Amino acid sequence: MSENKDTFNIAGREFSSRLLVGTGKYKDMDETRAAIDASGAEIITIAVRRTNMGQNSDEPNILDVLPPDRYTILPNTAGCYDQKTAVRTCRLARELLDGHNLVKLEVLGDEKTLFPDVMATLKAAEELIRDGFDIMVYTNDDPIIARELEDMGCAAVMPLAAPIGSGLGIRNPLNIRTIVENARVPVLVDAGVGTASDAAVAMELGCDGVLMNTAIAAAQKPVLMASAMNKAIQAGREAYLAGRMQAKRFASASSPLEGLFF
Amino acid sequence: MSENKDTFNIAGREFSSRLLVGTGKYKDMDETRAAIDASGAEIITIAVRRTNMGQNSDEPNILDVLPPDRYTILPNTAGCYDQKTAVRTCRLARELLDGHNLVKLEVLGDEKTLFPDVMATLKAAEELIRDGFDIMVYTNDDPIIARELEDMGCAAVMPLAAPIGSGLGIRNPLNIRTIVENARVPVLVDAGVGTASDAAVAMELGCDGVLMNTAIAAAQKPVLMASAMNKAIQAGREAYLAGRMQAKRFASASSPLEGLFF
Amino acid sequence: MSENKDTFNIAGREFSSRLLVGTGKYKDMDETRAAIDASGAEIITIAVRRTNMGQNSDEPNILDVLPPDRYTILPNTAGCYDQKTAVRTCRLARELLDGHNLVKLEVLGDEKTLFPDVMATLKAAEELIRDGFDIMVYTNDDPIIARELEDMGCAAVMPLAAPIGSGLGIRNPLNIRTIVENARVPVLVDAGVGTASDAAVAMELGCDGVLMNTAIAAAQKPVLMASAMNKAIQAGREAYLAGRMQAKRFASASSPLEGLFF
Amino acid sequence: MSENKDTFNIAGREFSSRLLVGTGKYKDMDETRAAIDASGAEIITIAVRRTNMGQNSDEPNILDVLPPDRYTILPNTAGCYDQKTAVRTCRLARELLDGHNLVKLEVLGDEKTLFPDVMATLKAAEELIRDGFDIMVYTNDDPIIARELEDMGCAAVMPLAAPIGSGLGIRNPLNIRTIVENARVPVLVDAGVGTASDAAVAMELGCDGVLMNTAIAAAQKPVLMASAMNKAIQAGREAYLAGRMQAKRFASASSPLEGLFF
Repeated sequence: MSENKDTFNIAGREFSSRLLVGTGKYKDMDETRAAIDASGAEIITIAVRRTNMGQNSDEPNILDVLPPDRYTILPNTAGCYDQKTAVRTCRLARELLDGHNLVKLEVLGDEKTLFPDVMATLKAAEELIRDGFDIMVYTNDDPIIARELEDMGCAAVMPLAAPIGSGLGIRNPLNIRTIVENARVPVLVDAGVGTASDAAVAMELGCDGVLMNTAIAAAQKPVLMASAMNKAIQAGREAYLAGRMQAKRFASASSPLEGLFF
Repeated sequence: MSENKDTFNIAGREFSSRLLVGTGKYKDMDETRAAIDASGAEIITIAVRRTNMGQNSDEPNILDVLPPDRYTILPNTAGCYDQKTAVRTCRLARELLDGHNLVKLEVLGDEKTLFPDVMATLKAAEELIRDGFDIMVYTNDDPIIARELEDMGCAAVMPLAAPIGSGLGIRNPLNIRTIVENARVPVLVDAGVGTASDAAVAMELGCDGVLMNTAIAAAQKPVLMASAMNKAIQAGREAYLAGRMQAKRFASASSPLEGLFF
Repeated sequence: MSENKDTFNIAGREFSSRLLVGTGKYKDMDETRAAIDASGAEIITIAVRRTNMGQNSDEPNILDVLPPDRYTILPNTAGCYDQKTAVRTCRLARELLDGHNLVKLEVLGDEKTLFPDVMATLKAAEELIRDGFDIMVYTNDDPIIARELEDMGCAAVMPLAAPIGSGLGIRNPLNIRTIVENARVPVLVDAGVGTASDAAVAMELGCDGVLMNTAIAAAQKPVLMASAMNKAIQAGREAYLAGRMQAKRFASASSPLEGLFF
Repeated sequence: MSENKDTFNIAGREFSSRLLVGTGKYKDMDETRAAIDASGAEIITIAVRRTNMGQNSDEPNILDVLPPDRYTILPNTAGCYDQKTAVRTCRLARELLDGHNLVKLEVLGDEKTLFPDVMATLKAAEELIRDGFDIMVYTNDDPIIARELEDMGCAAVMPLAAPIGSGLGIRNPLNIRTIVENARVPVLVDAGVGTASDAAVAMELGCDGVLMNTAIAAAQKPVLMASAMNKAIQAGREAYLAGRMQAKRFASASSPLEGLFF
């Protein structure tokens, strides 16, 4: 793939890396930086409510480690459980980032499952789009909701693979596939990836990218896992573009899985 | 991983690439060569009964494309359904390769499933080991058989992931894991991988390598798939070494999968 | 279980059978009747827009085969793609059934996937509840949406196992489990069951019941499959109540699945 | 199914119940008896080395609870790790049971996994068949081994679903299916079933029966689980005979799973 350019666009920006990463749960800023380096990520998502990106001028600022001229900073609304808080958080981020209007919207339904509240998400998305934001939106894996978010003008749709922080992998690949098949904006899996093969599966389903945080930060060796994820995303993307062989029960068979579904 | 050396040994030889590939089913020699290049493989397996490696002096010789000074050639006994034929095939290969004694043994049980005949395999392995061969042996995913082959002196154990040429992926990961946990010789998954994530899963289970042919050769773009597999093997290996996060139902939970098994 | 009463309640009515069936896709009325008999179902759902339950006085009326004094008739809004049509369909059913106000609401998102449009479903449910209906509601497997429908006053929540008519089984058992764990009203799997074990799995997850149509009607022998489903539902229910053994890698192990997730 | 006779034959004996159960791990003899009653089993397997069936005349004899004129007693060689012990155990059982020659042979490979040692099993089976025994034989899920055991004259082949006592369910359904498709003697899943749906799946794959012990005895309510298993086996059998609907991605699709394998 080295000679072909295989890039994708979000809200008019072009990206080469299809791995998006967060900054939470690392031991310290050095580990954060090393892991992000190894991941090759160009888009770094920051939880505005949990991370100092200028709100407190006395404390270390994440933007000193991740300079916005080198990375695309993607402020997110982690920890927001209602439309109002989510919208306010986006506006604060825009201010802190001098008018930067690309954000990741998540409005959560409860503290236990961290599932999105899609009702509140839809309303927040609508309000933010009217206010000039480019929205990448965390949602469940329902194809109809995904289409609704796209129709409303979201820049990218980000279905969960599994609950945030679970590491359970792609629980319902057919839903993700259906969302991809229907979409005209980028689809990125957000939440649930646990290890490298999970990331590869997401890409093999045709997703444009994967966003993750815990899978890297909670590995025993985060920097090595970041490297693994970097390669897995590329591997899955190439496998998708290469067109995999048809699975069948036996090499000898012409159409052997008919009638079976395990 | 670039600075660390993460190599493995088979029968006293050291290898960096953990992806082993075959030469069958390609369009032509050019595609074969390009795919093998992209795969990064150091060990190339050749079906002695199906490929000219010197048996017919009038026809193109695969060794002109894959020179044994550059690659470790691994003759295999594909198409052998009994002990005698398999043993004879290994001896022919050794002769054609000037005394090279590393071979991949497979004795198949039937033409439909291409499952190994482990009984005949055990006997052939015994005979070949007595005759000075280093045996990498294709087997089912039974941990007791794997241990028996190892105790007998096989250089590497190669359980199937799924039937040869099926592309069904790792059908029984727990068995592969058990084989890996018990083994003191390298364990390489042989047969059944269909796409990049399957290869990554094999490595995440702790395998030392993966051998494949159809998954690359029967992809729509074999050379690109070879590149995907190259990266997937590395991704899976690094993820294994990095130590993945513990899967759990929810981020909030401490031990949440107890009592569940889906 | 013969001596214990293991019943459940929907909107004040008590039921023994946890298998709910539809009437579509059968060869003829005789097969419909025989299959329903074999299923042991007490609640029969009828697609008001596709079945004559009195709309056309000249044609055979399904209620002659399935008399409302013997079965609980559950009119459903299959084929409705918007709030208005769904609400009107429920009102028509109530009229045809002399004031019967228990209905199954489904508002579909598109003709290809038959996924619910949960936004329109929520609005229709609200309108119907205000109008005095008892609503059993078809929805996706999102736990937050399920809770919202319950909070609104729905009598039962009916998440899909897989797309309507797919027969793919329970695609995301963890989501169904989460819905069950959170619910104070009955949860019934609706759509996606393909064979008997799928129905058993739904019950083992703690669901109160399962609704199906295609899995029975599209089997080669529908009446025998209806009997299979009848037994599978009971088997799954009893297994749930019996408390299954803990799964583990080996009998010898105390807590052996830790760190693994396949 | 009440009017049709759906029986199967093992070594000339005809059976109606397709659920075979063991006697280990129950609280006491009363619970054993109640669970066996609820299971509807006609064939009861007894671990000769662990259970008193007359070896010690001073202790309670299991045959007083399970009289051989009511049940078909199936002595098994649980706890035997070599050919010699297994053969001797079968001969002891024959003596204790007055010439009864139907036995379940298992020769285990190690104490951790309880996987069969198929090599030793083949030899023991050969010796026992020569000695006039009818052998039901525990084996791995390798179709070639299964055929070998059948060719040798075993009366029934009993592949594992998962390790003994694991409750992990059918780990490799395609292998079980292949064994069933090739077999001319009964195939019964032995070991690994954890709950009712697992048993149903085994039957849906076309198995003639299922043998289990831990799944019932280690449930929180063993007698209720025995009833669940009884129904699940019947449900799975009927579903198999009924011919399940073809699975597809969407009801609207004609051949929709092509190219996908999740």
